[in-house]
Amino acid sequence: MSSRHALIPARPVDDHRRRIEDALRPLSGRAVETVPMDRALGRLLAADVDAPLDLPVFRNSAMDGYAVRADTVAIVPATLPLIGVVAAGNTEQLTLPPGAAVKVMTGAPVPPGADCVVPVEHTESDGVTVTVRTSRATGDFVREPGTDVRAGALLASAGTLLRPRHIAALAAVGLGELPVRRRVRAAVLTTGDELRPAGTDLLPGQIYNSNGIALAAALADNGVEVVSVAHSTDEHAEFRARLAEAVAHADVVFTSGGVSMGDFEVVKEVLAAQGGEFGPVAMQPGGPQGLSVVDGVPVLSFPGNPVSTMVSFEVFARPLLRELAGLPALPISQLPLLDSVRSPAGKRQFLRGKLAADGVTLVSGQGSHLIAAMAHAEVLVDIPAAATEVPAGTVVEVRPL
Amino acid sequence: MSSRHALIPARPVDDHRRRIEDALRPLSGRAVETVPMDRALGRLLAADVDAPLDLPVFRNSAMDGYAVRADTVAIVPATLPLIGVVAAGNTEQLTLPPGAAVKVMTGAPVPPGADCVVPVEHTESDGVTVTVRTSRATGDFVREPGTDVRAGALLASAGTLLRPRHIAALAAVGLGELPVRRRVRAAVLTTGDELRPAGTDLLPGQIYNSNGIALAAALADNGVEVVSVAHSTDEHAEFRARLAEAVAHADVVFTSGGVSMGDFEVVKEVLAAQGGEFGPVAMQPGGPQGLSVVDGVPVLSFPGNPVSTMVSFEVFARPLLRELAGLPALPISQLPLLDSVRSPAGKRQFLRGKLAADGVTLVSGQGSHLIAAMAHAEVLVDIPAAATEVPAGTVVEVRPL
Repeated sequence: MSSRHALIPARPVDDHRRRIEDALRPLSGRAVETVPMDRALGRLLAADVDAPLDLPVFRNSAMDGYAVRADTVAIVPATLPLIGVVAAGNTEQLTLPPGAAVKVMTGAPVPPGADCVVPVEHTESDGVTVTVRTSRATGDFVREPGTDVRAGALLASAGTLLRPRHIAALAAVGLGELPVRRRVRAAVLTTGDELRPAGTDLLPGQIYNSNGIALAAALADNGVEVVSVAHSTDEHAEFRARLAEAVAHADVVFTSGGVSMGDFEVVKEVLAAQGGEFGPVAMQPGGPQGLSVVDGVPVLSFPGNPVSTMVSFEVFARPLLRELAGLPALPISQLPLLDSVRSPAGKRQFLRGKLAADGVTLVSGQGSHLIAAMAHAEVLVDIPAAATEVPAGTVVEVRPL
Repeated sequence: MSSRHALIPARPVDDHRRRIEDALRPLSGRAVETVPMDRALGRLLAADVDAPLDLPVFRNSAMDGYAVRADTVAIVPATLPLIGVVAAGNTEQLTLPPGAAVKVMTGAPVPPGADCVVPVEHTESDGVTVTVRTSRATGDFVREPGTDVRAGALLASAGTLLRPRHIAALAAVGLGELPVRRRVRAAVLTTGDELRPAGTDLLPGQIYNSNGIALAAALADNGVEVVSVAHSTDEHAEFRARLAEAVAHADVVFTSGGVSMGDFEVVKEVLAAQGGEFGPVAMQPGGPQGLSVVDGVPVLSFPGNPVSTMVSFEVFARPLLRELAGLPALPISQLPLLDSVRSPAGKRQFLRGKLAADGVTLVSGQGSHLIAAMAHAEVLVDIPAAATEVPAGTVVEVRPL
């Protein structure tokens, strides 16, 4: 048996990204669920919400003061009999007789018969009468019902990412729950006989599994619900079993490892046999990539080097996952690269960088295994595939990590 | 009894903000707790974390290929006897005899005796021998232990806001949990006889309570743990009881309502009697404000109009709460205001605006009760206290909502 490896032509990054996005985009039509208002922050409103009632709900006072008819205080000082007090929350209804005054608190109903409110600061009262020192026009300090929003009017539209200000308005009309898109549900499945969980002692040749926890964090950070984080050895049967569990309860599965050119590439071997496409993408790090669909569920297969895994997530999954969650797009900026770099011909490079006052610098340690170095990075620096020598000062595309 | 109201001089916004920040800043020294790695995203690392081991943990291969001595493939093609295969995760230790080759997978240990790896793409093998077609230098495709981080070296420093990339690195050294600052714990206490919870029918004069749910959302959105959201009527005894519960389990309490110049200002009446300071702040909306300390717990008292409550949060609490949570500061920008506005002399105004291509416009409806209008805003527009007429085109300070 010859193991001579033919060079498979590498697919451009944007081609592979588009194939992944085509596979994931149907998730924008995912199911709607109802959540109580106190769990709605950061969720994506799934339907237009109309106001079920007017805001303000009723004609009320904008100030602590005295409700009067404007024409009875046209000449000041004017002393009027005080015939009652309406606190906010008073549910009895009082009517203002002509020529009198009613004390009202902010938010309290303005009695029928009154057409303005004189702020308490511009009055004196002995509890029996009130002396008004400043004239007021009809409508002053009176909030009319429906002037904020009318019953039946659109209050928040489908697709709104719910921020505190939306929740304030939706709670003000008495809504106790909201229809929101279910979060995208992802399962993470790491592979590799060499990976061990935290808290175990390493034997020679073993390392700790960081991809599971890191992919889960990256997914959660971008509005995805992580339904499971599992690990498989490089045994086909075990991987098949873990994969079946993952696709059973997730909208999308992310695997790491097992996609390269070695002898034990469990992910590639199992999924290619089910029609998955595996092959090199013209990028560094993260070259070997796979995309499969199992029981209708897209499975994205990233390489296992920790930096490759994280860069694959940033390049292929993060932008669309943010869009599906209604999160703002990541700002992409053009900045001068303050270091010079060499880049392999035909491979787009995603280098880890840090922002400086006048541009972007590279963190030291760009190997695909240098995960501690990546912790010091703030951005990915995108070096085009065609570039081979990038002199310092070249303007490059930079995206936040 | 005369109820003539003396004009209390209004305090400048920045003075009141500084007093609040002085009261809250000791929370930066709040307790440390240990969280499992899968709950560490977005938390604030409480101590420097050194790597407990080298990364890479051991000398390993950067490629799927053949581990050889470089001097045995100096002249190519070179055919070497293949004496074994080391998969990643193989815990047996193999030594390379002189002049031979060992097949190694990415991440697998490079056997003692080998000093480079020839990528599989540059070889042919019949399973008994391997023919190497490209020479390699000592060290090629070999990852030496500790080249990413050395045992004992700083991996992440105290005060780091934990992002996925930090979690990846911290998991890679085998940590299963991390010391983080406890989140700031806040209690929300709304007041007002007129407020009713969602799901109840309103009687005349009643409105729905939006402040509780909206303040809770705003707090959670800024890294705060909301430990309770409660409501009190305007009865002193009930407010005292709810307040006692709030201060018993929170680091900071936020109240809404009951701070103005009406006859039923429960928050002001109860807290001023305990040494709380209440008075006007020279701003609109949000003028009446209070700050108290009860059993050592700061109590911030915001006015009850929904927009006033939310603007008070934005101006007085949000920046410092973000700092305490390790979240990035909100970007403040200088933009042309595309509308002209009039502003009351001596009062700093915080208007609700939307971003446009060439500046910022105001949303219609700036009253302190217009909470539905606020849902359409994206930013707060800061109009200085001294300004009375602000012509269109004036550059103003803008902060995101």
